Amino acid sequence: MDTETLGKLANLIRETRQASLGTLHNGAPFVSMVLAAPSKDLCSYYIHISRLAQHTQDVLVDPRVSLMWMETDDGSADLQQLTRVSITGNASEISVTDPTYPQARSLYLERYPASEPFFTFVDFRLFQIKVTGGRFVAGFARAGDLTPSDLRQASQR
Amino acid sequence: MDTETLGKLANLIRETRQASLGTLHNGAPFVSMVLAAPSKDLCSYYIHISRLAQHTQDVLVDPRVSLMWMETDDGSADLQQLTRVSITGNASEISVTDPTYPQARSLYLERYPASEPFFTFVDFRLFQIKVTGGRFVAGFARAGDLTPSDLRQASQR
Repeated sequence: MDTETLGKLANLIRETRQASLGTLHNGAPFVSMVLAAPSKDLCSYYIHISRLAQHTQDVLVDPRVSLMWMETDDGSADLQQLTRVSITGNASEISVTDPTYPQARSLYLERYPASEPFFTFVDFRLFQIKVTGGRFVAGFARAGDLTPSDLRQASQR
Repeated sequence: MDTETLGKLANLIRETRQASLGTLHNGAPFVSMVLAAPSKDLCSYYIHISRLAQHTQDVLVDPRVSLMWMETDDGSADLQQLTRVSITGNASEISVTDPTYPQARSLYLERYPASEPFFTFVDFRLFQIKVTGGRFVAGFARAGDLTPSDLRQASQR
């Protein structure tokens, strides 16, 4: 990918506050909204979700997930030209006693400061999604596969 | 669901032009952006997608899909309060010779008039997604399951 495309990719992930999460629910796909905070290298994503929510139960049964961010429709946009990125990965819970927990929590709260109160709720859990692959669509008919290495490169833009 | 919630649900589906599609890709979830046009009763959704796209190949292998619409983040929003709706369903291709094709095409183009040129592309196909169930989140901790009957009721608002 060229430098401009890498920059576009990094910006989309960093600036879009809503992500779509795909989980497996009884073997079928299920999509829900999540707030996902990227690691500096864009290869890990942190989500803080309630055990009472279906998507949380889903990832506890099968860790395979997908995340997607898309450029916002301003109402006038040519929708097929909107940039979007999908990643696939595996989710694992980070327990509060895990040595990586404080840093993951900080990354998440840096992105979503208003979410701090949720860390006092007993049903909420922090998960790390490690990227295995993905797909980037920079407009109609401009699509390409993504590797963790592409994301790492994009993170330097 | 009360009348106000049903109205909110119908509006979200009717007014949000971008949907997130969840498909099964080699057995794992994959999320991508689609334009989805609802039927009048909100129990079917029409998507017009390219055979060259991964999500199209996915639904040809396994018809189980999920669609999700979410209220747009205006940058200041309390994200957990944003309304979102997820449906699950089965996708099937509507061939151009199918008696329901003209009406499905009209519904789609009524919603996405700028997409007309795509109907001249040989790789594009029209699919109908029939709803089997869903989930509606009308803000933090205000979630409930959805049936096709709930959607039919919402469509009358």
